[in-house]
Amino acid sequence: MHGLIGKMTAAAGKRDELVAILLEGVHEMPGCLSYVVAHDPKDADAVWITEVWDSEASHKASLQLPAVRAAIARAMPLIAGFGEGATTVPVGGHGLG
Amino acid sequence: MHGLIGKMTAAAGKRDELVAILLEGVHEMPGCLSYVVAHDPKDADAVWITEVWDSEASHKASLQLPAVRAAIARAMPLIAGFGEGATTVPVGGHGLG
Repeated sequence: MHGLIGKMTAAAGKRDELVAILLEGVHEMPGCLSYVVAHDPKDADAVWITEVWDSEASHKASLQLPAVRAAIARAMPLIAGFGEGATTVPVGGHGLG
Repeated sequence: MHGLIGKMTAAAGKRDELVAILLEGVHEMPGCLSYVVAHDPKDADAVWITEVWDSEASHKASLQLPAVRAAIARAMPLIAGFGEGATTVPVGGHGLG
């Protein structure tokens, strides 16, 4: 499996709008086993995204999906920056639908 | 919802043993919507855990479950240290069973 953990900072006041875009279509990405969007309670503009894919290839393929490309294009202007993150190799757990 | 992201370092050579303990019973924790254990591909001793609970109370209650307390007691000697982490407020996603 292929995992991603990342923090991004929305443009001021734009977190809700950004989160709404990030959550569009999360159930329709082939190979996506887990995709969680979360607020950072200490930073009103910060968003955490944790992802698990059945393979790195599935994740890369998702970035070519028309709906995902369109969502990224709409999201980018709402993103002020990217923070810490990690690429991981999930080995098991709960909620890996 | 209540989210946790954390990195821990296993004692040298003990990651597999630690991961096996961490994965025990992950399907039997009331209120746990997602619990993913992952290797850090850049550090042979490092483990990432990402969790989503329906509430902070459910997470705290899980730490009192006999099986979880026993697993923590067995895991602690295998943990060399704790790294970066974050507490989050998940707002949606996929795989939140």
